[in-house]
Amino acid sequence: MSSAVPKKFSGFAPESQETWEHPKLVQYDPKPLLANDITIKVKACGVCGSDCHTLSGNWGPYRRPDLVVGHEIVGEVIEVGPDVTEHKLGDIVAIGAQSESCLDCNRCKSNNEQYCHKFITGTYNAPSPRHDNYITQGGYASHFRVHQHFAVPVPKNLDYEAAAPLLCGGLTVYSPIVRNLNYDLSDKVVGIIGIGGLGAMALQISHALGAKKVYAFSRSDKKKDDALKLGADELIATSKKGWSEEHLDEFDLILNCASSGKDANFNPFLRVLKLEGKFVTVSAPPLSESLSLFPFSLLGNQATVRGSAIGSIKEAKELLKLYADKGLKPWIERVPISEEGVHEVVTRCYKSDVRYRFVLTDFDKLFG
Amino acid sequence: MSSAVPKKFSGFAPESQETWEHPKLVQYDPKPLLANDITIKVKACGVCGSDCHTLSGNWGPYRRPDLVVGHEIVGEVIEVGPDVTEHKLGDIVAIGAQSESCLDCNRCKSNNEQYCHKFITGTYNAPSPRHDNYITQGGYASHFRVHQHFAVPVPKNLDYEAAAPLLCGGLTVYSPIVRNLNYDLSDKVVGIIGIGGLGAMALQISHALGAKKVYAFSRSDKKKDDALKLGADELIATSKKGWSEEHLDEFDLILNCASSGKDANFNPFLRVLKLEGKFVTVSAPPLSESLSLFPFSLLGNQATVRGSAIGSIKEAKELLKLYADKGLKPWIERVPISEEGVHEVVTRCYKSDVRYRFVLTDFDKLFG
Ligand SMILES: NC(=O)c1ccc[n+]([C@@H]2O[C@H](COP(=O)([O-])OP(=O)(O)OC[C@H]3O[C@@H](n4cnc5c(N)ncnc54)[C@H](OP(=O)(O)O)[C@@H]3O)[C@@H](O)[C@H]2O)c1
Ligand SMILES: NC(=O)c1ccc[n+]([C@@H]2O[C@H](COP(=O)([O-])OP(=O)(O)OC[C@H]3O[C@@H](n4cnc5c(N)ncnc54)[C@H](OP(=O)(O)O)[C@@H]3O)[C@@H](O)[C@H]2O)c1
Ligand SMILES: [Zn+2]
Ligand SMILES: [Zn+2]
Ligand SMILES: [Zn+2]
Ligand SMILES: [Zn+2]
Repeated sequence: MSSAVPKKFSGFAPESQETWEHPKLVQYDPKPLLANDITIKVKACGVCGSDCHTLSGNWGPYRRPDLVVGHEIVGEVIEVGPDVTEHKLGDIVAIGAQSESCLDCNRCKSNNEQYCHKFITGTYNAPSPRHDNYITQGGYASHFRVHQHFAVPVPKNLDYEAAAPLLCGGLTVYSPIVRNLNYDLSDKVVGIIGIGGLGAMALQISHALGAKKVYAFSRSDKKKDDALKLGADELIATSKKGWSEEHLDEFDLILNCASSGKDANFNPFLRVLKLEGKFVTVSAPPLSESLSLFPFSLLGNQATVRGSAIGSIKEAKELLKLYADKGLKPWIERVPISEEGVHEVVTRCYKSDVRYRFVLTDFDKLFG
Repeated sequence: MSSAVPKKFSGFAPESQETWEHPKLVQYDPKPLLANDITIKVKACGVCGSDCHTLSGNWGPYRRPDLVVGHEIVGEVIEVGPDVTEHKLGDIVAIGAQSESCLDCNRCKSNNEQYCHKFITGTYNAPSPRHDNYITQGGYASHFRVHQHFAVPVPKNLDYEAAAPLLCGGLTVYSPIVRNLNYDLSDKVVGIIGIGGLGAMALQISHALGAKKVYAFSRSDKKKDDALKLGADELIATSKKGWSEEHLDEFDLILNCASSGKDANFNPFLRVLKLEGKFVTVSAPPLSESLSLFPFSLLGNQATVRGSAIGSIKEAKELLKLYADKGLKPWIERVPISEEGVHEVVTRCYKSDVRYRFVLTDFDKLFG
């Protein structure tokens, strides 16, 4: 059911970076609707580790006052620009961490819009060149406006609240898994580091894609039962010294989903790779951290270290289909959106105290 | 012509790590000849950056007194063990940085003996499990003993002195070039960082293999003329700020041959890679250095960083054939072996003051 588009949108924003743990409801001007834009009424929004990095200042100062985060957004289309062909009023669509790119360069034209060299506009806290460098606002909000290309239809047989985290967290792990293993996991051994929001979905995805063996790497063995239920065959506690000795030459892909590498030692992961194996990191830690490797551990095993950012829109569509077809759901904790609810999710997410993804729900109750 | 094998070998070794710049002639017991071993009378030995790292203590303390370095060795076979089938008396053979491995594991059996998980015995300063953990001695010496597998026949039409550096320096760059570009460089853009011994040969090899374009990366533009003669199409001085802006999305392979990364900023190299491009490092810096990367520069361009150690014996044979077939020669400075000569090469090599590889020659004159 469609509804009127308000002049101002409402969302949760901290008054300043110092009070980031207490976002309050604010009103703000949306970016103007361009010919390819759609407006959605938000129905659910996942809470990504990146929201907490941004709010807490781990990634630098905010680019605007009244910053609203949230980039795992599901909502109903209530307005379409004149050139919109991909969506219609009443559709349920989902948006991830990217809201724009040039759509014209070689990268954009080859399903690599997340690596566009002209501009990659984040869903929040990023300048939008097409909108006069308006600094984008995210999905802890009543409404959201975005270029039609970056909204993905949600299959009818998916629980749309549970699906929200697929758009950033899920896609961020799906893309490097399918790219680096060429969509064929049948004889591949995969390891997932950091069983948080991304890590939990990475276990589900690796298992669903038929990996020969899936390992969870966690700092302790506290998450062992969960990891096995999520799709891991085994959990390795990395605090156990010497764990790598028994696993030499075993891994085709190790995916680093930890939110920090400050105290981590990545060298053992390089040791356990096959010669053609890859250590892929999607971790986006505080800006103050660097990824530090012992050069000889790269040489001695011909090791490969690679990075990956979110995924393409094509891959987002594949991922939603995978979850729908397999009857899968990310493991989420639902929290109705409100001042208290937002406070709870951002503070607990910051401590990785969640099994395994918060999703803000009940937007209709608050925003009508 | 064969000659008698002395009980003791003679070579140049520092009295202690403190006096590493002044190796003196010493005598030492060779490892015993096993059934698969050959003994050679050394005729020439290249001077690798690794010799200087080892002598100066950059890689830790010596593992034995009277340490003799040198792992780009050419000599004449003067003794063969009973199981030797690959070489015969009088053959001219060359040996690189590896003198043993298990030869039995999957890696050894698939032309990856340089990554053997059982043991990889360096040509000097490394324990040889087959010889009761004898600590190996290198090629700044009268004689050298090695497992037959690790000696490579030198083609007759190669200048054997000029060929010596191919065995470590040349192979170390050849292997990652052909592996990462799958032997097909015709539409590939290659960049070589650090125009020293390895870098100069990497330019020759990339050009000889028909790369579409070869860039030299050097800290200044002093080596520009040389780089172009060696095979580069262009030199980029990395001291020039902002050099990366004009080269986004250009490189298939960037090979880091610098002997130190202390003051280097590798992030711009990650930016100029194609999405499937690779930054491969063969640099083996002082142990105190770590390879430090800004995590976001890995993510934002899906960048790949990889290590590589020397190369396989199969690749060493291919490389000698390539130089022989193309009538190529590494650029070398010949220095007759003597106390003064060894002092000169190790001190100047330590400062990368050489165009572009020293080769110690005239062994016959000193050792008879
Ligand atoms: N590349 C991209 O495009 C992209 C997209 C989305 C998110 N991200 C980034 O991905 C990371 C993970 O996000 P998330 O939402 O999954 O976060 P999360 O739910 O908080 O999970 C992070 C996990 O990392 C591990 N961890 C936490 N603190 C750690 C520390 N100090 N040292 C080592 N490991 C630690 C924990 O796993 P264990 O308890 O199992 O050890 C934790 O569950 C964040 O940095 C986020 O910004 C990147
Ligand atoms: N992976 C392996 O298996 C393997 C095998 C052999 C050697 N190695 C290693 O490869 C490296 C190169 O050996 P090499 O024999 O070619 O050494 P080299 O002849 O001394 O050349 C090193 C080059 O690195 C650059 N460089 C020197 N100091 C630098 C610094 N502080 N910062 C940045 N760049 C610097 C210089 O190039 P520009 O003047 O052009 O900047 C120099 O010509 C050494 O670390 C060596 O141990 C590794
Ligand atoms: Zn995210
Ligand atoms: Zn683009
Ligand atoms: Zn060497
Ligand atoms: Zn082996």
